[in-house]
Amino acid sequence: MSEGTALSELGEFGLIRHLTEDLKLNHKSTIMGVGDDAAVIDRGDHFELVSTDLLVEGVHFDMSYTPLRHLGYKAVAVNLSDICAMNGTPTHITVSLAISSRFPVEAINEIYDGIKLACEKHNVDIIGGDTTSSLTGLMISITAIGKVDKDSVVYRNGAKENDLICVSGDLGSAYIGLQILEREKEVWKANPDIQPDLEGHDYLLERILKPEPRTDIIKALRDIGVKPTSMIDVSDGLGSEILHLCAQSQCGAKIYENKIPLDPSAITQAAEFNLEPSVCALSGGEDYELLFTISQNDFEKVAAIEDISVIGHIADQASGAAIVYLHGEEIQIKAQGWKSF
Amino acid sequence: MSEGTALSELGEFGLIRHLTEDLKLNHKSTIMGVGDDAAVIDRGDHFELVSTDLLVEGVHFDMSYTPLRHLGYKAVAVNLSDICAMNGTPTHITVSLAISSRFPVEAINEIYDGIKLACEKHNVDIIGGDTTSSLTGLMISITAIGKVDKDSVVYRNGAKENDLICVSGDLGSAYIGLQILEREKEVWKANPDIQPDLEGHDYLLERILKPEPRTDIIKALRDIGVKPTSMIDVSDGLGSEILHLCAQSQCGAKIYENKIPLDPSAITQAAEFNLEPSVCALSGGEDYELLFTISQNDFEKVAAIEDISVIGHIADQASGAAIVYLHGEEIQIKAQGWKSF
Repeated sequence: MSEGTALSELGEFGLIRHLTEDLKLNHKSTIMGVGDDAAVIDRGDHFELVSTDLLVEGVHFDMSYTPLRHLGYKAVAVNLSDICAMNGTPTHITVSLAISSRFPVEAINEIYDGIKLACEKHNVDIIGGDTTSSLTGLMISITAIGKVDKDSVVYRNGAKENDLICVSGDLGSAYIGLQILEREKEVWKANPDIQPDLEGHDYLLERILKPEPRTDIIKALRDIGVKPTSMIDVSDGLGSEILHLCAQSQCGAKIYENKIPLDPSAITQAAEFNLEPSVCALSGGEDYELLFTISQNDFEKVAAIEDISVIGHIADQASGAAIVYLHGEEIQIKAQGWKSF
Repeated sequence: MSEGTALSELGEFGLIRHLTEDLKLNHKSTIMGVGDDAAVIDRGDHFELVSTDLLVEGVHFDMSYTPLRHLGYKAVAVNLSDICAMNGTPTHITVSLAISSRFPVEAINEIYDGIKLACEKHNVDIIGGDTTSSLTGLMISITAIGKVDKDSVVYRNGAKENDLICVSGDLGSAYIGLQILEREKEVWKANPDIQPDLEGHDYLLERILKPEPRTDIIKALRDIGVKPTSMIDVSDGLGSEILHLCAQSQCGAKIYENKIPLDPSAITQAAEFNLEPSVCALSGGEDYELLFTISQNDFEKVAAIEDISVIGHIADQASGAAIVYLHGEEIQIKAQGWKSF
């Protein structure tokens, strides 16, 4: 199987583009297929949203430090996050699990408990699934279904020049949490008698192990009557997502480095790892926050919502997507994204 | 991971029942969750159908004799079959692939070509997906979405005493096709210089490698104005599916062994393997035909459709599900199904 073009030559985004570039859509009801956070299907009086994500052991998670209950929770969360990114409300999921037959039933229960907990918290019905054995690792494939009013759906391609760029929560914490887990794993591998030192890092660890989809932000925006002009969720790092918004909206962007929301514990811990916290925010990924743009007219309304930061504005396409540092220096953001190949 | 209850103690159906028995459904729109071939969601003027299936290398398919294009086709087909089993029409799918990074791009193209071919043939839009690497084997997870008029949806639980039991196409051929592939694999393993002898077995091999969802049967039933009283697709063998219909409809069944539709090539080839063809039909699985019941009043209409066989009738619950042999002997059908653990 080693002849031909290596997958690494294309990368994840390149491969998906390659596989889906010639897809034809024949159903009038298909409003949006591949190319945004979720597909959009016309259901008469509303739009249905559909998104699917696959988590693979050894690629997306490491069983040596991932509690199974958190894993189930996270598998749901990352899918619901995609529905939120369309300004929608998640309603249903299907769950497919491939599990080694060496797993005891109790382990599967743990995964399912996490899945059920996430569904209860976000009012989502589990309506189907498939459970099968795997000769090797664990794999969880979830499809999330949601709904949105027809005039409320938000795509990646609606950002306009001078729109404000906003982000929910804080960024980079998930990546720094992952560094803590990796460090303790190395310590443990070197000496299995030493207990991992995870104390005091609850917030950072929760960010990587048990992220929360921002259904609350979608509700808050609806409550104040603000519809973002474009939106995407932050799964691959702020830099990668900004580039998606700019490419699909045919615009540029300026992000102010000192406006990027960072948790104090992330700043402290980044220093310990000799990492620049804003670099963790830009390239780390897995924060599952919402990145969106709003019209300047909506600034005051949005400013009243806790947990939303304005981090920059949309610029003309020619000026590209740049990060502006405190002393005025501008650096172009380059495609990075998360490479699973 | 070896402590606790082994998965094999529960089996596939037992595990799914265990995991889903306490699921709560909170959305009014959820008409049917887990427990039929597809979930049913109320979309105002119609029902949406949702089903998901996972194919795992080494469990559901053997890469040594499965052409990748056929694999892609089959992954779609088995999902569309579930939509058909609700008397619905498939409209959309999402596709998640986990692939070894050793795979060249050309191999993924082959899989996707098969996926696209099945979608074109059955008029289905590919609206989303996820493609990621796997540290080990190949895995394909597909979610199929379909629609059905509200008064046309057919569940597993509607069979009534004296209804006629019908099946489309022929049964057992997929299992016999699999035996041919397994035999040639053994020959090849013993002597890699010998080319596999697959000639003359086109039909049986196609049945296992490239099954066709019976969208044509759903259309034919609609055209003659017949709505089955219950329906299920034959993925795990006729015996297992009959037991599902009986359990959910709280009835019994009598299947006449000599009425089970068999392809002549399956009969010939079964003899060569020393297999009873009706046993292959009952326990083999993977035929992806439709098993359904109709009111006796609809018999003449249905008899006019080519490729549907009446194989028995629904009985009272107390008499159980039995197969009746030519000389009158009756044997109770026992749960078998396909064990992936």
